[in-house]
Amino acid sequence: MSVHEEFMRRAIALATENVRSNAGGPFGAVIVKDEKVVGEGANTVTATNDSTAHAEVTAIRDACRNLNTFDLSGCVLYTSCEPCPMCWAASYWAHIGTIYYGNRAEDAARINFADAFLYEQLALPREKRVIPERELLRTEAWESFQAWQESTTKMEY
Amino acid sequence: MSVHEEFMRRAIALATENVRSNAGGPFGAVIVKDEKVVGEGANTVTATNDSTAHAEVTAIRDACRNLNTFDLSGCVLYTSCEPCPMCWAASYWAHIGTIYYGNRAEDAARINFADAFLYEQLALPREKRVIPERELLRTEAWESFQAWQESTTKMEY
Repeated sequence: MSVHEEFMRRAIALATENVRSNAGGPFGAVIVKDEKVVGEGANTVTATNDSTAHAEVTAIRDACRNLNTFDLSGCVLYTSCEPCPMCWAASYWAHIGTIYYGNRAEDAARINFADAFLYEQLALPREKRVIPERELLRTEAWESFQAWQESTTKMEY
Repeated sequence: MSVHEEFMRRAIALATENVRSNAGGPFGAVIVKDEKVVGEGANTVTATNDSTAHAEVTAIRDACRNLNTFDLSGCVLYTSCEPCPMCWAASYWAHIGTIYYGNRAEDAARINFADAFLYEQLALPREKRVIPERELLRTEAWESFQAWQESTTKMEY
């Protein structure tokens, strides 16, 4: 058994256990650095009343806490299902290096999860997406960006 | 001043204050239900060592906590900048009804944030995106989905 299979089996076990214990959806994830687990998570949306608590987001937060950093460069994500766009972008912002996934977004669609639909949505121009979006006070909003540009003490991420 | 402008100005103020206090990036967000603020957030990635702590995600989590639910149906998101794909998908999963934004993703690109780049990335097939993705143990991973399908006690979200 390769180390990759070992970590993926752990992610799958977290997913299945999460369903059996009624804690949440059938998703589990593991973050690995230098072949050691540095973070784990399962989907706890319903258990913790947090709609952002997908397995990957939960595992990224756990790894950030354990490593005491917002930068997971050099880490690998093993997830029992291809990340939804929220979790894919979360992986990007965390600087995850490689993603291993088990189920595909199309597989999730077969059990009525919206992952594949969300990939279609995000490829559309904003005005064609299912959540109505309206622009407001764009000129005033630039002030925040100008403050960031001018700040000499900011910490980039 | 319309109520929409009032809530957007609050989101912009959170963003600017976040920069001035060195707490994080120039992003603020407010969640409103029935014309009352039910959640607020700013970008606290660096302050809290949580790479997922964008303003919208932080505001959604705050609203979920305050309303004691994972379902923000009927809520409106006011954000000082168009949501990145992580935050757009988080809004979808939370059942946010409408999004008002100030700056556009293109504006964020002008101060070196990757939001617009991420929209381009998510429109690509998975094998062309910047994070390498590898499929592994897809058949075994289906077991978790089967457990979900067969569960008679699951809570959908």
